[in-house]
Amino acid sequence: MLIERILRQALEEDICRGDITSKAITPLPVLATADFVSKSPGILVGVEIAQRVFHLLDPAIKFQPLLHDGKRVEKGDIIASITGDARSILSGERVALNFMQRLSGIATATYIAVEAATPFGAMITDTRKTTPGLRILEKYAVRMGGGKNHRFGLDDAVLIKDNHIQIAGSVTKAIQLVRAEIGHMVKVEVEVETLDEVKEALAAGADVIMLDNMEPAGMKEAVALVAGKAMVEASGGITPTQVATVAATGVDVISLGWITHSAPPLDISLDIRVD
Amino acid sequence: MLIERILRQALEEDICRGDITSKAITPLPVLATADFVSKSPGILVGVEIAQRVFHLLDPAIKFQPLLHDGKRVEKGDIIASITGDARSILSGERVALNFMQRLSGIATATYIAVEAATPFGAMITDTRKTTPGLRILEKYAVRMGGGKNHRFGLDDAVLIKDNHIQIAGSVTKAIQLVRAEIGHMVKVEVEVETLDEVKEALAAGADVIMLDNMEPAGMKEAVALVAGKAMVEASGGITPTQVATVAATGVDVISLGWITHSAPPLDISLDIRVD
Amino acid sequence: MLIERILRQALEEDICRGDITSKAITPLPVLATADFVSKSPGILVGVEIAQRVFHLLDPAIKFQPLLHDGKRVEKGDIIASITGDARSILSGERVALNFMQRLSGIATATYIAVEAATPFGAMITDTRKTTPGLRILEKYAVRMGGGKNHRFGLDDAVLIKDNHIQIAGSVTKAIQLVRAEIGHMVKVEVEVETLDEVKEALAAGADVIMLDNMEPAGMKEAVALVAGKAMVEASGGITPTQVATVAATGVDVISLGWITHSAPPLDISLDIRVD
Amino acid sequence: MLIERILRQALEEDICRGDITSKAITPLPVLATADFVSKSPGILVGVEIAQRVFHLLDPAIKFQPLLHDGKRVEKGDIIASITGDARSILSGERVALNFMQRLSGIATATYIAVEAATPFGAMITDTRKTTPGLRILEKYAVRMGGGKNHRFGLDDAVLIKDNHIQIAGSVTKAIQLVRAEIGHMVKVEVEVETLDEVKEALAAGADVIMLDNMEPAGMKEAVALVAGKAMVEASGGITPTQVATVAATGVDVISLGWITHSAPPLDISLDIRVD
Amino acid sequence: MLIERILRQALEEDICRGDITSKAITPLPVLATADFVSKSPGILVGVEIAQRVFHLLDPAIKFQPLLHDGKRVEKGDIIASITGDARSILSGERVALNFMQRLSGIATATYIAVEAATPFGAMITDTRKTTPGLRILEKYAVRMGGGKNHRFGLDDAVLIKDNHIQIAGSVTKAIQLVRAEIGHMVKVEVEVETLDEVKEALAAGADVIMLDNMEPAGMKEAVALVAGKAMVEASGGITPTQVATVAATGVDVISLGWITHSAPPLDISLDIRVD
Amino acid sequence: MLIERILRQALEEDICRGDITSKAITPLPVLATADFVSKSPGILVGVEIAQRVFHLLDPAIKFQPLLHDGKRVEKGDIIASITGDARSILSGERVALNFMQRLSGIATATYIAVEAATPFGAMITDTRKTTPGLRILEKYAVRMGGGKNHRFGLDDAVLIKDNHIQIAGSVTKAIQLVRAEIGHMVKVEVEVETLDEVKEALAAGADVIMLDNMEPAGMKEAVALVAGKAMVEASGGITPTQVATVAATGVDVISLGWITHSAPPLDISLDIRVD
Repeated sequence: MLIERILRQALEEDICRGDITSKAITPLPVLATADFVSKSPGILVGVEIAQRVFHLLDPAIKFQPLLHDGKRVEKGDIIASITGDARSILSGERVALNFMQRLSGIATATYIAVEAATPFGAMITDTRKTTPGLRILEKYAVRMGGGKNHRFGLDDAVLIKDNHIQIAGSVTKAIQLVRAEIGHMVKVEVEVETLDEVKEALAAGADVIMLDNMEPAGMKEAVALVAGKAMVEASGGITPTQVATVAATGVDVISLGWITHSAPPLDISLDIRVD
Repeated sequence: MLIERILRQALEEDICRGDITSKAITPLPVLATADFVSKSPGILVGVEIAQRVFHLLDPAIKFQPLLHDGKRVEKGDIIASITGDARSILSGERVALNFMQRLSGIATATYIAVEAATPFGAMITDTRKTTPGLRILEKYAVRMGGGKNHRFGLDDAVLIKDNHIQIAGSVTKAIQLVRAEIGHMVKVEVEVETLDEVKEALAAGADVIMLDNMEPAGMKEAVALVAGKAMVEASGGITPTQVATVAATGVDVISLGWITHSAPPLDISLDIRVD
Repeated sequence: MLIERILRQALEEDICRGDITSKAITPLPVLATADFVSKSPGILVGVEIAQRVFHLLDPAIKFQPLLHDGKRVEKGDIIASITGDARSILSGERVALNFMQRLSGIATATYIAVEAATPFGAMITDTRKTTPGLRILEKYAVRMGGGKNHRFGLDDAVLIKDNHIQIAGSVTKAIQLVRAEIGHMVKVEVEVETLDEVKEALAAGADVIMLDNMEPAGMKEAVALVAGKAMVEASGGITPTQVATVAATGVDVISLGWITHSAPPLDISLDIRVD
Repeated sequence: MLIERILRQALEEDICRGDITSKAITPLPVLATADFVSKSPGILVGVEIAQRVFHLLDPAIKFQPLLHDGKRVEKGDIIASITGDARSILSGERVALNFMQRLSGIATATYIAVEAATPFGAMITDTRKTTPGLRILEKYAVRMGGGKNHRFGLDDAVLIKDNHIQIAGSVTKAIQLVRAEIGHMVKVEVEVETLDEVKEALAAGADVIMLDNMEPAGMKEAVALVAGKAMVEASGGITPTQVATVAATGVDVISLGWITHSAPPLDISLDIRVD
Repeated sequence: MLIERILRQALEEDICRGDITSKAITPLPVLATADFVSKSPGILVGVEIAQRVFHLLDPAIKFQPLLHDGKRVEKGDIIASITGDARSILSGERVALNFMQRLSGIATATYIAVEAATPFGAMITDTRKTTPGLRILEKYAVRMGGGKNHRFGLDDAVLIKDNHIQIAGSVTKAIQLVRAEIGHMVKVEVEVETLDEVKEALAAGADVIMLDNMEPAGMKEAVALVAGKAMVEASGGITPTQVATVAATGVDVISLGWITHSAPPLDISLDIRVD
Repeated sequence: MLIERILRQALEEDICRGDITSKAITPLPVLATADFVSKSPGILVGVEIAQRVFHLLDPAIKFQPLLHDGKRVEKGDIIASITGDARSILSGERVALNFMQRLSGIATATYIAVEAATPFGAMITDTRKTTPGLRILEKYAVRMGGGKNHRFGLDDAVLIKDNHIQIAGSVTKAIQLVRAEIGHMVKVEVEVETLDEVKEALAAGADVIMLDNMEPAGMKEAVALVAGKAMVEASGGITPTQVATVAATGVDVISLGWITHSAPPLDISLDIRVD
């Protein structure tokens, strides 16, 4: 339901009062076929989205997926093939590509980070630094790239930040206040900046301890301190190239805003042939 | 209206069923102040958006803009200052930053391209390669960066592409078909790939001729051929670093998808102090 | 998308909590056939709309169009034939007819104006004086009647009015301000009231000059002054019966609010036969 | 709620991506005052609507109503006066006028019909032949013109038409079926074409008997037959000029689609003065 | 349209960002069949709703209704059978059951009240004390249980309450004010508390007189006073067990908020078998 | 945002095309005051909701809360006092009461269950058996009654049911599949029916083990088996009167659908005085 609304709004945004060029060129349907083709290697995401975009626009369009979300593509791979009225294909082209390129870019960036973290047993997750309105799709792209999802929003898990701690009075007090309110299905994570805070969070029963902007040396000490009694997450401006170094410290989770806010789009084109 | 809907959806996406952390930490309001601070130089966009985000969330929040959209910021500049209930500030922080960082990133990239093009008298414009759902904001960021907006969608200007030409039969025929349908307030642009097509488009009365993926040498010839009788636009995978070279060919307009799909976000933070 | 929303809202407005009469008469489907019949001559618009109305209401309804949008109808012509559950036909009848009669009325009025203008080479366009919420459909009806669309809204073309000129300081200054902001795909029209303003607008590079409420004699002089260097549009309270006189002055475009705000509906009925 | 949605959609339809002319003319607010002035006599409706339109657009606009909905206006009367940023006034002008002219036209046409019917004691009502999407406003305009509202939609009163009777088997059977389903707060009207049907409807206990397209002579006989035991309504293509003749037959109610689908708009302008 | 929106929102509320359990268990479809089974006797409502819920979720689901809305079910009866992807069945189960149990509970409670009232010739109706957002469905459930619907909202019938009378000055004045405004298709009910008010309401021409919280003895007197010249409705905190006593007083209508705000849900389960 | 939409829809549902009674009684505002009064003891929820309902309807209404959500009320307690136009108070009365009575009923039922469970150290939670469309409000009422929230929907925590286990092959396999997909912030609960399944779930690392429809004796054994290594939840048709017995078994959590689907509404009235 949510995804359909996102796609409808994207189509309304682009087509709005009508594709005046295509309508003027021919009042009658013109049969065409078109291929989505990858122009560079990466992890593909957005085939189903593209299919739904064209289906919303013109249910008569035939959309044949050849590769599926989560697959690795090489330059020149044909991703999907569509057949139908050229006017519908031309009208939906940009919206479909805008989704596919962005989501594949995210999955590709995630994949690179996952490759770097896996040898050390660390998990890669996203953050809430996503594009406003597209979080559900971007978090899906992260999963397709081999990453895991951190909490979706402010409502499905607790993350106690420094300002929360300041209001509560201490790490311990903050965790107690939260535990008194939340149900038994919600996990509690605390953001800490020092080893003392790590100890306090551990003692207070945090499920996850987030090391915010800590140096690798500090991370190692924190991991040793926690000793498996909670999960340890590294966070704060980490880029894919830094992942291996961070993972080597022994943290369980590495979260990267980079993969959703800075990943370059994957180059994909739609080659249309009017028959 | 449109922008309010975008902001409401972004807030619903993130907060959805409620900020369970902040609500648990304190059931009562806690006064806090917070500053939006630039962490790197660039062109600022999103101050008004941030103000509206907080106003939608909590009308009692006081938001004091110190710098305005379109201004250049340096590292350390305070952009705006807000005062109010810490819980509202914490709940709105991420959404406001996600907008501000992305839009400022776009404006900054645009500005760099405009700086490169201006000495040659060329205009920088965006494309339709924008983030689905955010086009109105991203095109605004382009203007704040000194760029101009190309058509907003498929409905407000004509752009005849190769597939349209193929359906119509020729460049000339395509332009005639379009002219017969559209009103007198709509401009007609044609995408061409060869100099012969430039000549045909010019003869057929195109308002704007788009040189698609042409080499600088070809662009120069095209500019000479057109000789001011139509506008000439360069397009196709141009990055900010290539702008000067392209502008030097004498084209009137350079359109870049890069500034909306690949611009890195500007680093901005919200420093909160609970009183 | 936009049109579907308009149709859904029209159905909700009329049916809302249910057609209590039809539901009470029979709990079971009753097969019926029905014909849309023209009761007077005119230009038909709304066949596709009626089809979509019934499809939204009851996908099992079979709708057979016999005439198409833009066709001339005579009294007694059968426009379309539908078969299905009588209750669905009865529930959708009024909404379908309300659209079809209004849109056909607009197309018919437009056609009359176009017939009067064509011998003089003038183009007929609509204005923004449309029914709130139905502009996209009414502008479509204008096209079906042979007219062209003026700008759709405040966002897709520039029209500088006297108050804009007053704020800017002069016609020249207003055009300069606008040119500095807008992209290369947007046309600029200026509303003028005197021949001096015509000259100034022409010199300042207006694409279109609108003669507001000018007498035919003044229009002729304006046309002579402009001499093809810009388009000339006549506007201001013009009715279909005045079109020929105005067109004879040589203006390029005549815009009429009358065709959307005052055109009488075309008389069309739905003849239902329960089998 | 419903009306706010109608107004928001009308504003979005017209302004959509922004008023590019006004924004280009000045980036700063410019103080202006403007008067809504009647250009012809009639019944005024739409002052509150105009006020809400401008309030939605710019809450800082000051709107001073001088005359109220339902009042008679003469040519030259000032209806309301507004003060505020010229850009907001220019952006909202057309939407406000489109509502006010249409609604005042409906009220004026209704008033004329009411004047003709009143000496005979007949009530004037509207029908469901309203503009799709605007029924709630058009029915309000009818009340402001002195008319009454017939049922709002298919859901708030029963109107048994000939096809319903055909499905049920007879007028009597149709009324029985309906009475068995509906609650005690719903009235039942039956559409009849002959005096025999009038008798049958009366015997079966109809609350209201609608004489569909009957001649005045037949109406008189029907009124005599019914003798006050039910209400009698005349309907079917009646224009304001025919009202007196119809009312003279003694019917209780005369319903006119004409007042909503064919009433000419009242001529009203907005005179803006930039200070 | 309205019902589809209710169902979509219920699905979004429950599934929102996705059914993470079912998606994790299998990435591929798994064929399953499932039966809706009644766990206690009652009146069934919600089969069509359940069918639409699953259709919205997954159009490939096959839904076979075995019993229909309004039917009496015994413990163990199979209501409907569905076949399709187990993940879709698991995702839709709770929403479908939540609707079916609540609506069947309302119909069952209504049926009990109707059984008690029928021997005395009284009609059972609902009130406006329904669940916010679900009124259209709950009023449908009342009809399926053999009850009738009182007015749907504040807009489709007049109910003059004590505060209205206080504002108007008297019962008579209130009825006169209302009659002067409303159309001929709207019924007028007055809420009274004493026999004097009954007389006044009758004299003033009320269509329905509601006895608010009156004792059975008073009801009998009121019925005698009215003597069939208006309908008499008993209202105010009546439970199903009191219905027979109230009905025996001779009132025409008994309205119960109880059937919508206090009816226990009917116990229904969905038995799923993965093949 | 979500709550505002719920309230708007409730108001539209009830008022829709307008409160025809109140509008007819007086065209002018009439000052009135009104008190929300409790008619029976319980836990109050809905004061803020009522305030927002009236604010949406008429921002000029003054709403003075005297008691707050979560407070215990006795018969006769004044909950809140409102002052303003009698017409607005009358129009909003039913919607505000419908919310307040239902939510207070849920909080009261929850409170009774919490009182019974607390001596044994067990937590009371809700389920997903809530009213479609009102879950966010009903879960809030549960918290106000002293209960905790189980997962909000299918998306924020994992609950592995018997059908999931059947698809996966075993409890162990199901937990493994889920762990491989979900992020580190999501808890995993497994529904089991036998002690063997309890052992398997524990060994496989479930965070929470739900004993579905188990007898108290079995629950005791399960609690002993688990021995604090996971949380144990009792579920399945538990009513408030059974809570003490269940809690005595030592389970950590007792979840009750009863408190949201069967709690009787709290009797609250609005006493209006026209001044």
